[in-house]
Parts: sequence; structure tokens; C-alpha cells
Amino acid sequence: MIDLEKVIREISPSAEEEKTLRKTAETVLKKIKELCAREELDAEPVLVGSVSKGTYLDPDIDVFIEFDRKYDREAMVAAALNIGREVLPDSIERYAEHPYVSGHISGIKIDVVPCYRIKEGERIISAVDRSPLHTRYVVAKITDRERAQVRLLKAFMKTAGIYGSEVRTRGFSGYVCELLIISHRTFLNCLKSFSETRGKYVIPEKSGDAKKFIEPVIIIDPVDQGRNAAAAVSIENLSRMRVLSREFLRNPSVDYLERKRKPHETHMDRGTAIRIFRLPASGIVDDTIYPQAERFRNILVDLFAEGGFSPIGSEIDLNDHIDVLIECEREFSPMFFVHKGPPADSERTHEFISKWIKREDVIGPYISGDRLYVDVPLDQHSIEDYVMSRLPEFNIGAHLNDLKNELEIIDPSKGDEKFSVMEKFFSRSIF
Amino acid sequence: MIDLEKVIREISPSAEEEKTLRKTAETVLKKIKELCAREELDAEPVLVGSVSKGTYLDPDIDVFIEFDRKYDREAMVAAALNIGREVLPDSIERYAEHPYVSGHISGIKIDVVPCYRIKEGERIISAVDRSPLHTRYVVAKITDRERAQVRLLKAFMKTAGIYGSEVRTRGFSGYVCELLIISHRTFLNCLKSFSETRGKYVIPEKSGDAKKFIEPVIIIDPVDQGRNAAAAVSIENLSRMRVLSREFLRNPSVDYLERKRKPHETHMDRGTAIRIFRLPASGIVDDTIYPQAERFRNILVDLFAEGGFSPIGSEIDLNDHIDVLIECEREFSPMFFVHKGPPADSERTHEFISKWIKREDVIGPYISGDRLYVDVPLDQHSIEDYVMSRLPEFNIGAHLNDLKNELEIIDPSKGDEKFSVMEKFFSRSIF
Repeated sequence: MIDLEKVIREISPSAEEEKTLRKTAETVLKKIKELCAREELDAEPVLVGSVSKGTYLDPDIDVFIEFDRKYDREAMVAAALNIGREVLPDSIERYAEHPYVSGHISGIKIDVVPCYRIKEGERIISAVDRSPLHTRYVVAKITDRERAQVRLLKAFMKTAGIYGSEVRTRGFSGYVCELLIISHRTFLNCLKSFSETRGKYVIPEKSGDAKKFIEPVIIIDPVDQGRNAAAAVSIENLSRMRVLSREFLRNPSVDYLERKRKPHETHMDRGTAIRIFRLPASGIVDDTIYPQAERFRNILVDLFAEGGFSPIGSEIDLNDHIDVLIECEREFSPMFFVHKGPPADSERTHEFISKWIKREDVIGPYISGDRLYVDVPLDQHSIEDYVMSRLPEFNIGAHLNDLKNELEIIDPSKGDEKFSVMEKFFSRSIF
Repeated sequence: MIDLEKVIREISPSAEEEKTLRKTAETVLKKIKELCAREELDAEPVLVGSVSKGTYLDPDIDVFIEFDRKYDREAMVAAALNIGREVLPDSIERYAEHPYVSGHISGIKIDVVPCYRIKEGERIISAVDRSPLHTRYVVAKITDRERAQVRLLKAFMKTAGIYGSEVRTRGFSGYVCELLIISHRTFLNCLKSFSETRGKYVIPEKSGDAKKFIEPVIIIDPVDQGRNAAAAVSIENLSRMRVLSREFLRNPSVDYLERKRKPHETHMDRGTAIRIFRLPASGIVDDTIYPQAERFRNILVDLFAEGGFSPIGSEIDLNDHIDVLIECEREFSPMFFVHKGPPADSERTHEFISKWIKREDVIGPYISGDRLYVDVPLDQHSIEDYVMSRLPEFNIGAHLNDLKNELEIIDPSKGDEKFSVMEKFFSRSIF
């Protein structure tokens, strides 16, 4: 049996680290408070995120500056950016829902983010406004023992590649991990619940509010009953969590909590047609581009299915480029398709025959079993021809539409170049 | 509107023809009667078949010699063959259930067939023993007006290629046509019943006896309630009859009663893999060989589906050889297959993972949607390799098993040779 206490010690900060972190956070908060006073702002800093809740794996400090609702967005952002730049010597500006400032003090990463001050039950103005409410809720509910359990759960999910709610991962956020432990009390109980439930995963289990949501994981946000805190989790990641929970409970191993993924050998030629569809990615942030890359992937898969290329797999990789890999069963589209008509004992046979009998180029209508069919000839296309001919009608989203004309179609079997999307595709594994 | 009376005149014999036929039949019957007396046989000739019932399209005379049950099969056959040879100067011996004699008088084809004398309700000894009972039933029930309607129905079915109950055709026998008209009274009513009914086609409509039968067309034999007179009819031929009845009723045309099939152009290369599997046919009668050829076809289709060649069409042609054509989507079997595992929320995930994780050559287990999968590598085969490697395990039936080692696999796209099975396959049409 695995010694979970030992793992907890390994993934928790030392007293020394904890002390440095607390001190740094206090210093930053104090400085921001002074700057708010100096600028006569109706605003104050608040420590949020996993450091404030004592559930962190990586000691990143998130400081939100809560502004009164009287400020408009522009004024709020301008004031927060000024303060952030003054507090963080190496600051750079980033962009999520609002612009914010990111930098370092004593080697610790610090974000300074503006938001509106919201009381519980009050309507939020922007999504980030909820973070201080989440922090207060978790801090009030969680015990020290449970903080360690959150760390275990996060480590488990991180190893499985399902930790983080960014669209790139579509996994479980830190807040969701905290709510899971608040609900199940221990890491093992939490895994047990994933391994035993069927269908949608819902907390609270018999919540009437859950009916409103369509996502595979539904965890009602305790600070806002109208919100699903786990809306980001994909069906794949719920599935991974269930399968891996079951594996861990049968055969607990530290591998599930700290193992590095071993790269698999790349299988290239398996008699299929693989192409990489590459768009330039210069200057676009991941979180905006990923949904568009996914949309691009889905458009391509649907297109190849429609064209009769029989797509059997796909993968996305964001590097210097946006790479979408599609694996099809065939290099060329079929020269005809077997079109299924109505059953012989249906009134619709006449309509079907009238429609097709005029076409000199089809075979049939003929009978097979109890129905009518025709073999309809098609223009044959290569993958390249086909995609280029359909490209104008794609709507991939604002950013990617602008880049469509720069699309490059790469056949990775030609030449020796290595592609990270190929490695990602061929190393697909639950572990 | 089509003039059905005119069609009836065209397909019915002239008074002259009818007279010659009657005279010939009477002469043959009289001669056989005399021979039976000379040989002191407890046996007498009886005119059966469509000529005796006045429902024929082709004037073939069928004379059965009814023997008393006291004769054993050998004695009965020997006596009948002797008589047949004496009556028919150009006789040849043929074989159905028993041997029989076939020849010509005044250009009219005549069969002389032995059978046992059976009274209605008595148990038959061989299948041919029923023919005299069928003849008596039809003659007693049918009117002259209805005889003409039977001729129309037979002409319609002949044009559609669904007339005849031999295994090669699996269509409607002459007796079934007569029962259909006895039931529906007119040709048009009969077509109406085919165009309007759904599912199985049953006569009498609410027959309790029909429940015993599994065939698509069930017509209870009035002389034997335990027999389905239409057992031979395939689902394809019922479907053809339904679709064509509907077409005819919407737009009646003599084309459906006398049209010659126009040969279609042969489409050869449509990006698929077509092979002809050829066995020698020397000296084997059609009716025994066809079910075995069909079994061979089904074995091949199943085999190619199992091997991942994606079979999409097939055809059988019996000529100097037994030719089975199979059309597959691919020339080579795939190099791997995507094996679907259990859903993530099932207890069986561990078993699946344990089984596959040991295999170094597979990709996965990985998650897609809500389930586990693995990509399992396969040995790649050509159609030829694959069939030859599996040949020893085929059980095609007594005759064809002996010929397996003479199997020839022909790729019709190589070379200019024409194959009748190709023409048959590519001219598939409801019309």
C-alpha cells in the first residue's frame, strides 16, 4: 500500500517556503493598500487563489484589487495596471477577461488583477469578480487535513493531464478540486465517487439545480446556484478521471501522483492517409485560439466524413503554428457511393425510382434485400484538392478565417521532418 | 391506358396452336396408356402442368405417370424411363427428384415423369406426387377469364426476371401464379395487393397456418395446409414484385409485360477491388450447385468483412464455371483496427486496461468521448493471400469442397477478357 502521508509531505511546501510565501504576499498586499490610499481609490487588495486557500502545488500569488461598482471598466483597469506596474518591477501586461499585470518578487510569480467588489448573492459584473467570493467560501469551509487532500487530488489530476479549466485542457480547476474535497472529505473518497457513479457526475448528488446544466460534470457553485463550477470539464476528461480512479483504487501507486509521461515510439505508416493542416499562430493567445483550432479540427473531420475519406483520428497541437492532424482511411475519395433508397413495401419507391431512373450515370435503382439502392458516381479527389476546393466556405472563426489563405497541408510521410502533433497523436494513452 | 385485352391476345395461343397442342397431348397420353396396359402396370398417365390447366406461356407438355404405392422407387423409375423412351423418339434422360425422360413431338417439348398416385389428404411419398393434385385443384377452381389473368401475371413476372421457383431464380412458380389469381381474381387486383401490403406477403391473409412459416411470401397450399407453396420466393423477389407493381399501377405500360432487358454499359474501374472467384462446374446440375454457390458467396462476403476489406457488392453467375464476383472497398486489408473498449463509467475498464497495456505494439488504451479504445496492429494481406490462407477452413458443401483446390482468383481489370458475371453485376436494375 502506498504511503499517502509521505506523498503529502513531498507535494506540500516546507515551513520555510510557506514563511517566505506568506511574507511576500503580505508585503505586496500592504504596498497595494498604500497605493490605493494614495490614489484615493475606493478599492482594496485581496489575496485569492490557491495560496490564499493553502491548497497550492505551485506557489503563485494572485492578488485581486476589488473596486467599487461606481468605477467604469476603463478607469478600473487603468488604475489597476498602474498599481501593478509600480508593485512588480519586472511586470508585463497580460489579457484575460480584463488586462492585468504579471511579474515576480523573490522568484515568486505574482498576478495583480482588477475586479469589482461583490457581496454574496449580489450579481457579478465580470467573471473574475467571483474569485474573492470563492476564496472566502473555501477558507471558511476547509480544514488543514482537507487542504492536504486537495493537494493530493490536484497532483493526481495534474499527472493525468486533466488539471486546469483552460480550454486547452478542459479539465478540473483548482476551485473544483476544493469543492470535491469539501464534498467528499478525502482524496480516496473522491476517487471512489468517480469510480462508482454512472453517467453525469453531479454534486450535490440529488441537486434540483443540476437539471439546468448539460455538461458531463455538474458541480453547483455554492456562491452562485445558477452556475456550474465544472462546466469546463470535457467528457473525455471525466472519462479519464473515472478510469484512472478505478485503476488507482485497485492498485495504488505513486506513479499516479508524480509520474512523468514516457514518450511512445511514433508509428508512422499504418496504411492510412495522415495530413497536418498548418496555420500560422503568430501573436495570438492560446485561450482564444484553441476553441478556433478545435472548430477547425471538427470542420475538417466532418468534411472528410462527408467526402467519403473515412476519418478515423485527429489531434491538435499549438506550437509556433496551429497544427491540426487528421488521419483518414483513404488518400482519395471514392468514385461512387451506395445510396440507400426506401424499403420495397413503402409508398416512396415510385418517387425514388422517378428521381434516379433519369440519371444515365448511376447503376440501378436495384433491389438488395428488402430495399432499393442506387450506386451514384462521384468526382474523385485527393485530400489536398478536396480541402482546397472547400476552403472558401469554411467559417473557422475571426482569427483563423484571416489566415485561411496561408494554410499549408503537410504529408508527414514525405521527408524526415519531425512534428510534435504526430508524436502527440501516436502517444495517445490513458496513462 | 394500356389495352390489357390486346396483350392477352398476344401472349395466348391461337386456336390453331391450341388444337395442335391438345392433339399432341392426347396422342402421347393414349400411347402411354397402351404401354401401361401392355406392361401390366398398375399405373396411368395424367397431363399436369400449365398446358393441362390452360395457363401456359410456353407450350411444354408435362405427362406424369401415376404408379400405385406398391411399386418401389427403382421399379417405378425403370418402368417410366422405358415408356418415355418408347414414346419420345429423341428422348434424353434428366434428373430432378427422380430420373425422367425429356423429348419432342411435332416441335413441342414433352417431359415424361414418374410419380406415386396420391389421393387428396393422403401423405405424399415424393415431392412430384403433388403435381397431379395441384392440377386437379386449379382446373376445378379456375375460369377461362382467370386463365388469361394468370398468363398476364406470368408475363409480368417473367419480364421482371422473378418467374420460376428454381433456386437459380427463387421466384414465383406457375402454381403460385395460379393461386394468386384464384385468390385475387384479376391481374390488376393481384398487383394492387403486392403494392399495398407491408412486411410478409400472406395468402389467405389471416391464415393461422401462416405462423408456422418463416419465408417472406407465405401462400398456404390448398391441397396441403402444412406446406408453403411460395417457400422458394426470396426477399429480393418479393421486393421487386412490390416495387414493380407500384410502378405499373401508376404508369401501366406493355414494357412490363414484354420488354427485353437492354444491356447496360459495363462500369469497370470505380476505385474498388473486384475479383472473380471461379470454380469448375463440369457435370453438375444447376439446381444442386446454386445453393452451394450462394453459400460460397456468403462465406466470401463474411470473410472479407471480417478481414476489413469492406465488401460492398457481390454477384453469382453459372456458366461453364461457377463465378462468384466480390467487390471490396480496398485491395489490401488494414494494418490496424480501432478496437472499442468499455465505457468509462463501467466496472470493466480495469480488465480492458490490464489486457491491452501489456501489448507493446498497440496504441492506447486511450480515451475518446466516454469510452476506452486501443489501436491494434494487424498483418496486412492482399485479397488473394487472404482468401488462399483461409481456404482450408471453408465448408462450401460436398460438391464445391472437392473443387476448392482448383479455385482461380481473377482480377477482371487486368486484361481484356469479358466476364458474364461482370456484365450481370454492373447491369443490376429493378427493370
